[in-house]
Amino acid sequence: MKVSLNKKILSKNEECALQNRAFFTENNTLCLNVISSPGSGKTTIIVRTIRELKDKMKIGVIEGDIKTDTDAAKIRETGAPAVQIETRGACHLSAQQVTSKLGAISAGELDVVFIENVGNLVCASDFDLGEQGRVVVLSVPEGDDKPTKYPGTFAKANVLLINKTDLLDHVEFDTDKVISDAGKLNPDLKIFQISAKTGQGMNGWYNWLLGLCTKTAK
Amino acid sequence: MKVSLNKKILSKNEECALQNRAFFTENNTLCLNVISSPGSGKTTIIVRTIRELKDKMKIGVIEGDIKTDTDAAKIRETGAPAVQIETRGACHLSAQQVTSKLGAISAGELDVVFIENVGNLVCASDFDLGEQGRVVVLSVPEGDDKPTKYPGTFAKANVLLINKTDLLDHVEFDTDKVISDAGKLNPDLKIFQISAKTGQGMNGWYNWLLGLCTKTAK
Repeated sequence: MKVSLNKKILSKNEECALQNRAFFTENNTLCLNVISSPGSGKTTIIVRTIRELKDKMKIGVIEGDIKTDTDAAKIRETGAPAVQIETRGACHLSAQQVTSKLGAISAGELDVVFIENVGNLVCASDFDLGEQGRVVVLSVPEGDDKPTKYPGTFAKANVLLINKTDLLDHVEFDTDKVISDAGKLNPDLKIFQISAKTGQGMNGWYNWLLGLCTKTAK
Repeated sequence: MKVSLNKKILSKNEECALQNRAFFTENNTLCLNVISSPGSGKTTIIVRTIRELKDKMKIGVIEGDIKTDTDAAKIRETGAPAVQIETRGACHLSAQQVTSKLGAISAGELDVVFIENVGNLVCASDFDLGEQGRVVVLSVPEGDDKPTKYPGTFAKANVLLINKTDLLDHVEFDTDKVISDAGKLNPDLKIFQISAKTGQGMNGWYNWLLGLCTKTAK
């Protein structure tokens, strides 16, 4: 009975994920699901990306948090559309929640939609939201053992942003080990070393985004 | 049907948690459930605590991780007994898993058992493991918004360790805000500002532990 119930729950999420993906594809909107531990810098990365690329692409954000709408407020300060989902205890966003917010940010008119998932390096990666790509953020102070400890999350990602490289002189962190361990789990993983605080290394990430974004080029 | 199934699962965990708590009480063993985001420094805190207090109390550790047994190996280097639980995808430890490992570290002969939960600031706090106290670790680079964003975890804790204070000069972090926000959620929360790397501020935490430990005093 437990198995069939789990299957039913997953199927509902999967169904909505398929609908979301069809919507994004139809509208040439690139949707990226951004996953990380709490405090790795997801919001700071998205805010800086919006400010740097605002003349080149239209970006909107769906924010997920257990509680508070502070992150959506930070995004809106850039002028970009943002909507908050408060999960009130749930440890990840669901595809249904994403579906319910597509209208609020006029997602079909955007070049890129970032879904900033709840800060959680485990659960978020098990739920397809209908995104076209997954971005995992690992910040330097979290330590270089995270790909081996949380292999599923790194194996299912398309991009790894190693963030807070401005702190490399102050903590123990072997970047080569992370690149090697993550590469073993996921040979196709695209990796950028960045500091969203200083801007260092962000150009590679911006160019990757611009290269994927087909709407503006039309 | 969903509600009754959830209730059954919770009841089984609760049943085991009650048994674990009775075991710890009967043996005068202080059991602490240590919860945090990935990479906040749980293992480093426990390793330093064991090294500093090894002449004063017997400490053992039950380690939880999605994958790898590197943390248990780090603990064993101190000479303390440690056993690893690999949850293989599950985002938190269960009381049953803890029960199954009590023998492996001869928990009844110890003064303190630390249960280092899976790195997860959401899910771990929903499951009673039969501990007598909860320690939440928040590291400075994670940011000062975590109590308001993850209120349940901070509300259910007995101790908050604000770790990596050696990085305060390099990141934006308002310690007073964290203390105020966490205090509003949980007026009885005991808070220590520490650096497990440099040892700064650890004495308050050690004294708190020694004050609670009744076995050695007998």
